[in-house]
Amino acid sequence: ELTEFCNTLNAGRTAEFMEGLEDTDLWAVLQYADADRRAEIFGYFDEQRQVGLLQSQEPRQVAELVDRIPSDDRVDLFQQLTGTRAQTILPLLPVADRRDIQRLCSYDEGTAGSLMTSEVAMLSETLTVSGALEALGNQASELETIYYLYVVDEDNLLRGIVSTRQLVSSLRTPSRTLGDLMETDVVVAEVDEDQESVAEKVEHFNLLAIPVVDSGRQLLGIITHDDVIDVVREELTEDAHRIAAVEPLEEDYLRIGLLNLSWKRGIWLIILFFAALLTAFALEHYHEELNKFIWLVSFIPLIISAGGNSGSQSATLVITAMTSGQVELDQWRKVLGREVIVATVLGIFLALIGYAVAIFLAPTPVAALVIPMTLVAVIFVGCFFGASLPLIFQRLGLDPAMMSNPFVAGIVDILGIIIYINIARLLL
Amino acid sequence: ELTEFCNTLNAGRTAEFMEGLEDTDLWAVLQYADADRRAEIFGYFDEQRQVGLLQSQEPRQVAELVDRIPSDDRVDLFQQLTGTRAQTILPLLPVADRRDIQRLCSYDEGTAGSLMTSEVAMLSETLTVSGALEALGNQASELETIYYLYVVDEDNLLRGIVSTRQLVSSLRTPSRTLGDLMETDVVVAEVDEDQESVAEKVEHFNLLAIPVVDSGRQLLGIITHDDVIDVVREELTEDAHRIAAVEPLEEDYLRIGLLNLSWKRGIWLIILFFAALLTAFALEHYHEELNKFIWLVSFIPLIISAGGNSGSQSATLVITAMTSGQVELDQWRKVLGREVIVATVLGIFLALIGYAVAIFLAPTPVAALVIPMTLVAVIFVGCFFGASLPLIFQRLGLDPAMMSNPFVAGIVDILGIIIYINIARLLL
Ligand SMILES: [Mg+2]
Ligand SMILES: [Mg+2]
Ligand SMILES: [Mg+2]
Ligand SMILES: [Mg+2]
Ligand SMILES: [Mg+2]
Ligand SMILES: [Mg+2]
Ligand SMILES: [Mg+2]
Ligand SMILES: [Mg+2]
Ligand SMILES: [Mg+2]
Ligand SMILES: [Mg+2]
Ligand SMILES: [Mg+2]
Ligand SMILES: [Mg+2]
Ligand SMILES: [Mg+2]
Repeated sequence: ELTEFCNTLNAGRTAEFMEGLEDTDLWAVLQYADADRRAEIFGYFDEQRQVGLLQSQEPRQVAELVDRIPSDDRVDLFQQLTGTRAQTILPLLPVADRRDIQRLCSYDEGTAGSLMTSEVAMLSETLTVSGALEALGNQASELETIYYLYVVDEDNLLRGIVSTRQLVSSLRTPSRTLGDLMETDVVVAEVDEDQESVAEKVEHFNLLAIPVVDSGRQLLGIITHDDVIDVVREELTEDAHRIAAVEPLEEDYLRIGLLNLSWKRGIWLIILFFAALLTAFALEHYHEELNKFIWLVSFIPLIISAGGNSGSQSATLVITAMTSGQVELDQWRKVLGREVIVATVLGIFLALIGYAVAIFLAPTPVAALVIPMTLVAVIFVGCFFGASLPLIFQRLGLDPAMMSNPFVAGIVDILGIIIYINIARLLL
Repeated sequence: ELTEFCNTLNAGRTAEFMEGLEDTDLWAVLQYADADRRAEIFGYFDEQRQVGLLQSQEPRQVAELVDRIPSDDRVDLFQQLTGTRAQTILPLLPVADRRDIQRLCSYDEGTAGSLMTSEVAMLSETLTVSGALEALGNQASELETIYYLYVVDEDNLLRGIVSTRQLVSSLRTPSRTLGDLMETDVVVAEVDEDQESVAEKVEHFNLLAIPVVDSGRQLLGIITHDDVIDVVREELTEDAHRIAAVEPLEEDYLRIGLLNLSWKRGIWLIILFFAALLTAFALEHYHEELNKFIWLVSFIPLIISAGGNSGSQSATLVITAMTSGQVELDQWRKVLGREVIVATVLGIFLALIGYAVAIFLAPTPVAALVIPMTLVAVIFVGCFFGASLPLIFQRLGLDPAMMSNPFVAGIVDILGIIIYINIARLLL
């Protein structure tokens, strides 16, 4: 009955049903599934749970499971086991798997190597269509994907690639060889290539998987579409954090240590704090004017936030447009031109509303003109710096997302104060 | 020679080489490629270019090309042609394609229907393994993906699914039927399901493609992995824009009309402006105090930005954690608990720095205490509201990303001012 439960439903849903169980019960139920299915169900538990199970259950059973986990995921899990536990499990694995784990462990986080799986169909170019199909059939359960066949020479150098689609289309000519069919102009990832650039290639060429090669073009493994989606999500979340002045977290928000989290936020808050101190010194300069026209003080937060908000809109729009490839660096004139127009429209509009209010709070209608004039200028400054700083950062080869919104706001704050008081000086 | 150029390189790279050409030249070169390849190369040009070509080139050749474009992409392009152009091309297409375009046009943007392609392998459950393989071979060039076979009954109701992997693994038992092999517990998307939820399913189950069914479980089409990556990117960018108080754009940043862009930004700036007006009225109340202790004014921007920045950090962290599934609503206690601790650490740290500066700008060291005390309180308020508002929005069934950072900052601004002046009143 438990065997049936484990084997009829789709693995993802079976995993959902089992999630509520205690570790030992869950492990016991898992044993009713056959070995491949067990690994598949296991793959749907969340990572913490997976590590917990590998850490705590019977070593021989754990090793049997580990043998079936896709090689890319297995390494990620292994790296989270305690040293003693890893030393217990490793010797229980077949020699090939042990080597594979040790090899994959050696690639840096965030590179192509850290994402790849080594379970890939490597075939020789002399193989025929029917031979290749048979080879695939025999290996299918071992491979991460059977949808591309990689043609290699005797030194495992990548010669070309044949899709299973081509193979199936060529069924009527079963004696053609892979060498005839293969596409030789292959899109590849270097093993130490940044994961962001790997993801861009997969997205651009709509690939199911991308082969990973070393500098000598030896085929080391492949990265599959599902892991690429995770990278895209990770990289965009990283950008969102940078935009909000948080150093990217290496772990989930709920799992990361609180001191670590405080540091990743604090470092930026302190930088921004020093920027904000400049506004304090600027205002210190203008005490005389402010004392005379105390009503001006009421509008300080409003003016600063109008500049900051429009600046953060511009910065975010430009950053996201650049990271998604919609805007290239050489289009900076067009970007700034558009921002100037939008800033003018927005500035005039907010100035009108601002003037309507200022009339009531300022001593005279003429004095109230300080507010709309400042708003137009500050929104202009906000949009201009918000749009330029990411472009400048990109030009300098830095991550445009690093030009975070609060940082833009910091610059706009200082300029805003200076503009405000000087317009007031002129008019009052 | 041109024929060779079009046919040897990988289609994506061929497209890159051709991009520099004028429309008419590019079109002429394209004619040297065979029909399927032509459509493939064409698929790599950017969308604007594609629409331009379909709009301007010889109708009969255009129709021939359109016939080969994957049905999902074709509809997206067709919807951008002028009415008269569409009317010229449609009659030149085979009847089946014409119907397909009209049908796919009818689904709303952002739903599963608008993403799906109808070129899917639908087979009967009585078909044998070898028969299925043959059928696949014949249809391979027509299909968007051959990696899942969808088993349907005579009314096209979805009965199950067989992966090509299973098919290839079963080559040694060629007379087994698809009915034997198929998995019946299939993950499906409803045709009017939101694309974000479709993407979540594909991500969770690591699918290559997801079948789209109507409410009666009739199979209408499939959505493939490459289009899902685009959705993930689109949805995360939408969130980033919302977080920065920009209404999501329907078009690329450089392509959207400037008035439309101004509106999508202006609507939020105005809302935030009214929120900021409240700070003006609050400060208006405190003119007397501020006049007496004019040095307090210098610190207004600094205090406001410390609160706003820490609030936007919290809000962004909580929003991204929720959208990527790391945080569920029922974990709100844990989230707030963590934020309280982080806020305390950050608050104390910034307060120390703030006090060191305030000693020099305030009249007495005791008076200077107003600054660190306010900073602790304001950072606490920032983190607290930054983390709670997205949770509250989620609870209300609204998009948590809508609780944009500037909005959090707006609330924190007002509270910050009130806290600041009241602490000053107490101490001075
Ligand atoms: Mg193994
Ligand atoms: Mg993985
Ligand atoms: Mg890894
Ligand atoms: Mg793509
Ligand atoms: Mg994987
Ligand atoms: Mg990165
Ligand atoms: Mg990045
Ligand atoms: Mg057709
Ligand atoms: Mg569409
Ligand atoms: Mg996944
Ligand atoms: Mg598609
Ligand atoms: Mg959406
Ligand atoms: Mg969303």
